Amino acid sequence: MTYCVADYLADRLAEVGVEHVFGVPGDYNLAMLDHVVAHDRLQWVGCANELDAGYAADGYGRLRGMAALATAFGVGELSAINAMAGSFAEHVPVVHVVGAPSTDHQSAHRMVHHSLGDGDFTHFMTMHEGITCARAALTVDTARAEIDRVVAAVRDQHLPGYLLVPTDVSAAAVDPPSGKLPDPVDYTDPEALEGFVDAARTLLERAGSIDRVALLAGLLTHRVGGREVLARLIDAGPLRHATDVWAKSLVDESVDHFVGTYAGAASPEEVRSTVEDAGALVVSGVYFTDLTSGFFTQRITRSRTIELGARTASVGAATFSPVELPTALGALVPLVAELAERAPATRRVPGPEVALPAPPDDEPLSQDALWAEVAGFLRDGDVVLADQGTSFYGASTHRLPAGVDFIGQPLWASIGYTLPATLGVQLAQPDSRGVLLIGDGAAQLTVAELGTIVRQGLAPVVVVVDNDGYTVERAIHGPDEHYNDIARWDWTAAPAMFAPGGGATATRAGTVGELRAALRAARDDPSRMAIVQAVVPRDDVPQLLADLTKALGQANSRH
Amino acid sequence: MTYCVADYLADRLAEVGVEHVFGVPGDYNLAMLDHVVAHDRLQWVGCANELDAGYAADGYGRLRGMAALATAFGVGELSAINAMAGSFAEHVPVVHVVGAPSTDHQSAHRMVHHSLGDGDFTHFMTMHEGITCARAALTVDTARAEIDRVVAAVRDQHLPGYLLVPTDVSAAAVDPPSGKLPDPVDYTDPEALEGFVDAARTLLERAGSIDRVALLAGLLTHRVGGREVLARLIDAGPLRHATDVWAKSLVDESVDHFVGTYAGAASPEEVRSTVEDAGALVVSGVYFTDLTSGFFTQRITRSRTIELGARTASVGAATFSPVELPTALGALVPLVAELAERAPATRRVPGPEVALPAPPDDEPLSQDALWAEVAGFLRDGDVVLADQGTSFYGASTHRLPAGVDFIGQPLWASIGYTLPATLGVQLAQPDSRGVLLIGDGAAQLTVAELGTIVRQGLAPVVVVVDNDGYTVERAIHGPDEHYNDIARWDWTAAPAMFAPGGGATATRAGTVGELRAALRAARDDPSRMAIVQAVVPRDDVPQLLADLTKALGQANSRH
Repeated sequence: MTYCVADYLADRLAEVGVEHVFGVPGDYNLAMLDHVVAHDRLQWVGCANELDAGYAADGYGRLRGMAALATAFGVGELSAINAMAGSFAEHVPVVHVVGAPSTDHQSAHRMVHHSLGDGDFTHFMTMHEGITCARAALTVDTARAEIDRVVAAVRDQHLPGYLLVPTDVSAAAVDPPSGKLPDPVDYTDPEALEGFVDAARTLLERAGSIDRVALLAGLLTHRVGGREVLARLIDAGPLRHATDVWAKSLVDESVDHFVGTYAGAASPEEVRSTVEDAGALVVSGVYFTDLTSGFFTQRITRSRTIELGARTASVGAATFSPVELPTALGALVPLVAELAERAPATRRVPGPEVALPAPPDDEPLSQDALWAEVAGFLRDGDVVLADQGTSFYGASTHRLPAGVDFIGQPLWASIGYTLPATLGVQLAQPDSRGVLLIGDGAAQLTVAELGTIVRQGLAPVVVVVDNDGYTVERAIHGPDEHYNDIARWDWTAAPAMFAPGGGATATRAGTVGELRAALRAARDDPSRMAIVQAVVPRDDVPQLLADLTKALGQANSRH
Repeated sequence: MTYCVADYLADRLAEVGVEHVFGVPGDYNLAMLDHVVAHDRLQWVGCANELDAGYAADGYGRLRGMAALATAFGVGELSAINAMAGSFAEHVPVVHVVGAPSTDHQSAHRMVHHSLGDGDFTHFMTMHEGITCARAALTVDTARAEIDRVVAAVRDQHLPGYLLVPTDVSAAAVDPPSGKLPDPVDYTDPEALEGFVDAARTLLERAGSIDRVALLAGLLTHRVGGREVLARLIDAGPLRHATDVWAKSLVDESVDHFVGTYAGAASPEEVRSTVEDAGALVVSGVYFTDLTSGFFTQRITRSRTIELGARTASVGAATFSPVELPTALGALVPLVAELAERAPATRRVPGPEVALPAPPDDEPLSQDALWAEVAGFLRDGDVVLADQGTSFYGASTHRLPAGVDFIGQPLWASIGYTLPATLGVQLAQPDSRGVLLIGDGAAQLTVAELGTIVRQGLAPVVVVVDNDGYTVERAIHGPDEHYNDIARWDWTAAPAMFAPGGGATATRAGTVGELRAALRAARDDPSRMAIVQAVVPRDDVPQLLADLTKALGQANSRH
């Protein structure tokens, strides 16, 4: 085959770390997929539908820092648009490549399938304006430059991008890349950084001792590549620290100076006072959203706070910009180390809370018991995906072992997201085991990807919380209304339906002992997907969720 | 409960013929759903996911002339947007009601869940601009007027509309409607109509005899309410007539003077010559799209053609406007009757083609045998839904018995559409039996709605064509590429998974005899959904589809 635009795109995607392209074939992208399939560093992962493929790409992008999705014009791209909007809201880099009708058909305004029939082929790219950081409709002349621009923007801005590729453009001959994409630029202004460091030193000194310094870390720290330098900063104290629930697993939760998850007034008292009463508080990449801040009940005193955004660093009321977040974190390390040496910690750091006595095997399963058992099951190398609902709030209050990643979606909060995301996560980190925690209502939205997980030979542990409907919504409004009921499915029949070749097992667990046995069996057989249908009472709700939903129900009914 | 905006909306929906509201609950629409559930003429139909709910509403709207969909802000509405775009492309009236964050949260630009987090709540309504005929973000002051405007526009324009309803607006007290919505207006200009009639009379007289007059009817005839008057016009000749495949079942296909389905050069010769060689041809509400016109190979001679659009009527090169399509059809009835009386048909109208001898029971199933058996199975009152692919093209060449409706989606062509549409169709016409024809690849996109169909106690016949992948795409490009393969599922396990209460059966049919037995059993038990997994060879393709896909593959590779 002659080297063509599709090859160029494939080469650029591979260059920025993509190894798997998720999507659904359609006649406008079939010829392009030939070049994905033929590429020596790319694999095609066909999904059951496009929304799921978008979720899978999102999960992949969260761990890999880059992902790709391929769909067909109109029907395919719009089916995936909720996933792309979620990637935008939660800062996940995904390049969405859409195979489109040929330039000939477009310029003749033909009434072709997958269009609205009005001869206008710009509608769907326009819909992507608010949810992508860069977009291009490729032509033969501009293809190489536009691919470079969009792929680099997605990599550097950690947000989704969109490429519309007509069939003829995809197949047009072009030269291969003449060199690598330029590296991301650190836009930090040295004078702004110097001012920030001076102001931060003063604030830290005013705190007096390392005992009185704390740190709260959020999602953006992860997205802009600040995870390693954050760990160094914490160690330099060591600093007592917390994350919000959106950033769960950003830091090692197994150490003593990790105090827990901060959620405003919904935080445990130890966490709340550590964050809110600190003499100097470093806030790194935190967004306070309704569901991560205990419904905007955070109490952060600006005059005692060093706050880092993606490219803006503040100390009290003074703002320094542009200062990139990882650079700002790095600049704080020697300041904290110096204070720690001069005025080290004297206060006892309380160890992890003492575990409650384990319930007996024959105890009926409850939300509390379920999440405690699941937390105890986790091992270094696992990736937990907790769907927005009882799973997310139940799992997030447990301390994770070192080396466990945690993925949720508390801002976009699209239920069902985590099931296909598990597919993406398992392919992104083939040596990890995915542990999916999802409610029965949520799993109904995206069930089909169980088949794709099996087809790819992957073996996550899938805990389906069978509580007979949308429990999180019952907690907000209409506990007994039938709109919060769902169709009854038997999840233990899923292997027969989706894995006729034997790639999955399924067990029903109604007691603590049955859950323990099912999880043990899953750990003992890492070669097959293990589905556990965990039956808990319908209206049982984790405490954190109960607090939040009460606030939410009030907010929605206020008028 | 005090009468509120949600009640007003529910009353208006019921007034225009909605009895079922499809959707998925979310915390921003829960309180609104209380008023749907409480309404004496509305039923809530919770679906597994929003795309499926949109497809179900579309199926309902095609038969009822009005449908409603309810989703939550952001995640829900965007999941359904592909369905809405399809409704727009295929002229289906659906009111999409989106429950949104409260006015307070919106005006404070709060970073709340299901938003992009940027404080801007207009993104998603903007995305709906190109795919809806009317939109409104309700406020308390404007709610009644805006609901009236959008609901009436959807009813009158036969296109989807969009209503954004903040939680507080939904609950705000308002007065009930003070009267009915105004009736749709017939905008026909009497002088334009008179000119049209004169010109049409001349053209028909020039044809000389009713033998030389023919009619080709398309989708828009159905959408603007022209079905009955079309039947009267055909009877007045009787006129030899055809439909395009998009309008299949618009006319009674059991009569002798129905010649078949017109698809340009891909038509049977008898159909092609009837349409293209007529002395006078009435073309009623036809759009020529790539997949309905044999890839734009229609040969319609304008000087011999009377063409009716929604509000424009042409005779040869002369255009008369505004003339509403049903009015124009009605005006043609006496002209045709007069010609038929003066110069009646003398030419023999050939009867339906003689059936081939039926294959023996032990013959392995093929596409040809499958569609012949399914066609023979159909009865007055059935509604056939044929998914875009081998099902649509295989089924569409068979003559339907009287009283059978046929639903496909050849312009938007979103595979998987028909499975949830079956849910909508069965609820729209509870006395009909849905017969769903769908490929295995297509059914994977929307499988979850099998559970909703069972939950609603519905009993369609579901034929899943098991041909191991995307056969329609293999025919276009990449016959042996693995991107056209799919995960292998066992559809006979679907009842255990989705209908643990016993609401469904499933059978595998690999021979003609097994198919016959399965269909017979389905007919004998109208109380349960009957799934038939019909196994056909992987690369077997109906002839009409083979012709089309060849043209399509060439169009996509041209550059």
